[in-house]
Amino acid sequence: MGIIVQKFGGSSVANAERVLNVARRVTDTYSQGNDVVVVVSAQGDTTDDLIVKAKEINPRASKREMDVLLSTGEQISIALLAMAIESLGFPVKSLTGWQAGMKTDSNHGSARIKRIDTERIENEISKRNIVVVAGFQGINRYDDITTLGRGGSDTSAVALAAALKADLCQIYTDVDGVYTADPRKVENARKLQEITFDEMLELATLGAQVLHNRSVEMAKKYRVNLEVLSSLERLPGTKVKEVTKVEKTLIKGVAKDSDIARISVLKVPDQPGVAYKIFSLLASKRINVDIILQSIGRDGSKDISFTVPLADKDAAVDILESHKETFGASDVHWDDTVSKVSIVGAGMQSHPGVASTMFEALSEAGINIQMISTSEIKISVLIDRQDADRAVSAIHAAFLDRE
Amino acid sequence: MGIIVQKFGGSSVANAERVLNVARRVTDTYSQGNDVVVVVSAQGDTTDDLIVKAKEINPRASKREMDVLLSTGEQISIALLAMAIESLGFPVKSLTGWQAGMKTDSNHGSARIKRIDTERIENEISKRNIVVVAGFQGINRYDDITTLGRGGSDTSAVALAAALKADLCQIYTDVDGVYTADPRKVENARKLQEITFDEMLELATLGAQVLHNRSVEMAKKYRVNLEVLSSLERLPGTKVKEVTKVEKTLIKGVAKDSDIARISVLKVPDQPGVAYKIFSLLASKRINVDIILQSIGRDGSKDISFTVPLADKDAAVDILESHKETFGASDVHWDDTVSKVSIVGAGMQSHPGVASTMFEALSEAGINIQMISTSEIKISVLIDRQDADRAVSAIHAAFLDRE
Repeated sequence: MGIIVQKFGGSSVANAERVLNVARRVTDTYSQGNDVVVVVSAQGDTTDDLIVKAKEINPRASKREMDVLLSTGEQISIALLAMAIESLGFPVKSLTGWQAGMKTDSNHGSARIKRIDTERIENEISKRNIVVVAGFQGINRYDDITTLGRGGSDTSAVALAAALKADLCQIYTDVDGVYTADPRKVENARKLQEITFDEMLELATLGAQVLHNRSVEMAKKYRVNLEVLSSLERLPGTKVKEVTKVEKTLIKGVAKDSDIARISVLKVPDQPGVAYKIFSLLASKRINVDIILQSIGRDGSKDISFTVPLADKDAAVDILESHKETFGASDVHWDDTVSKVSIVGAGMQSHPGVASTMFEALSEAGINIQMISTSEIKISVLIDRQDADRAVSAIHAAFLDRE
Repeated sequence: MGIIVQKFGGSSVANAERVLNVARRVTDTYSQGNDVVVVVSAQGDTTDDLIVKAKEINPRASKREMDVLLSTGEQISIALLAMAIESLGFPVKSLTGWQAGMKTDSNHGSARIKRIDTERIENEISKRNIVVVAGFQGINRYDDITTLGRGGSDTSAVALAAALKADLCQIYTDVDGVYTADPRKVENARKLQEITFDEMLELATLGAQVLHNRSVEMAKKYRVNLEVLSSLERLPGTKVKEVTKVEKTLIKGVAKDSDIARISVLKVPDQPGVAYKIFSLLASKRINVDIILQSIGRDGSKDISFTVPLADKDAAVDILESHKETFGASDVHWDDTVSKVSIVGAGMQSHPGVASTMFEALSEAGINIQMISTSEIKISVLIDRQDADRAVSAIHAAFLDRE
């Protein structure tokens, strides 16, 4: 008994049958005496289809007009889901982003939620209406439509849960929880009952595509009780919390990210300011840099290597090539056949032997490590992409199969 | 130099090429120094596709949610047209119904515009932006999305022209003006340079699908200068005005309406109140009745015949059959193979011989007249549907070919 926010992604509402399935999940929760606010994404490929339509007309359309266009995808979803809920005989109102009071900044295409004016939603809840809200969208201070960018519906759901002080925010996906590794690839992957926000953040960043990063950050900030569960099967999911029960497993998961490329800037002078020049250049193009490795200086020069998102590789190489004289590099190399494999678990730094167990597993599998990066709760290695799945299995076997 | 409102229908923006074509028309008008406000409908079959989607999920979806769904069609159009205008290098802003301040009543699915808060549009105009507004939609006093019903984009355009005190409201369609008859069917059909509001109203009602009735009524009320012209070819169109120059032609057009059925209620008592009972019954089901013909009472009983829209025929027959005892009818007959053919022209009643010329033309063509109805500016006859096209040609030849 309380307010429950439920979020369903695009594949969960991809066709009429699935929309009706979601309606049954929602109305069951409502029938148990809860107030229910549902957040939905655009159906299946709707967003991609709209992007194709736009590109036919203007490949360089303004982000403002792209937002007007793309926000229709979620508007279609809320109407269809509300109709499905009506067909089951329950009271329901659909609300677009602006109707739901989702106020964002003006950063079209990747806007941030500034606040939610919850008056309309609370009014509908007080009438015992189920409320269906369009995810991914809002309006800025000029009443222009904005979108939050990919994965934004998760953020909409968590932000709504925070603003409504909801008792629970359930994120329904096509997997049934957070696993210790990708269950389609690693036979012994186990579903976690609980995970901390920080661990979840590392996993999300590392390519375990369960929850969008910004949504987890927001959930952590506002202490929203999150749960990740399957939209298709009725199974317990994974709870994401500030502190979890002590589980036997120190390592919470093994994740792989293949959407990256390695770039190396060779023979830059071994003097102050060189790294700053390189990375400020990339930042000016809004290119995020992940693992950074710098060789020891030798003969007055050093090499700097780092990873970037695969989609930004060309842009990064271009700008570095065209500026290489300014920081005195001899050459810019790149490799787009790499993957990052990581283990995540709170407190692993206080347990010696975690890194060595990981490296041992890779060594026994004959896999070469190109780069290493560590944080308080994760260890990442960069390896050949063709070894990535074997690496995940080997590491999973070393840490998680034995239990 | 002034404010021009231009409306483009669904077929004018059906694909990328046509959207770019519309963008060129709009920007040409803008380049001549005018402020331009464009109203667009949903692309081609978008609305029908959305209705199919809804029916799959809930054939009896609420009108509120249907409006949320259908309004996305025009929102897609405004974004795409704005992108096309951007691609030509012109400043533009798209606005949905609510952003454009279109305030309607709460009659979902066929809402009426109550007022337009023009502040946002005027603000954009003052910045010399071309403004692209979603037709067919608005919001009610609760901030719920409403739609104006079929043909509503014409009404949106005329209402905007009235609210903005526009110098001209141009309605672009797939014909290039108002003709004396359907030019696809009648070889000698002529395009009219001018027509009065009243004549246009009769033609619209009679199935000449050029302009939506409500839009002409509104244009007449607010004295909006209307022009109907082709979205494909650059030709002068037809101007719709309060008073037109005296043209040689008394008769402005011949129109055919085949979307009707005739219903006859047989042998009702020849006493007061019977017609009232029949037509109040139909009114209670919101069925519009057009031509009414009542036979002379004989042997204490009479027959009442009338036409209804073809789509309402079954409902009309059902309710009359189930109530026929209450008004003492012996039987309810119907005929759904009829057409109404009409001639329209202001002042025809003061010209004797118009009706007889029409009837003579039909007689010479061997076409039987089932019912006759006349008003100040039109004469309609009900005939067999299979004779309708021949009837239009014969009447057109009698009145309009000779000039």
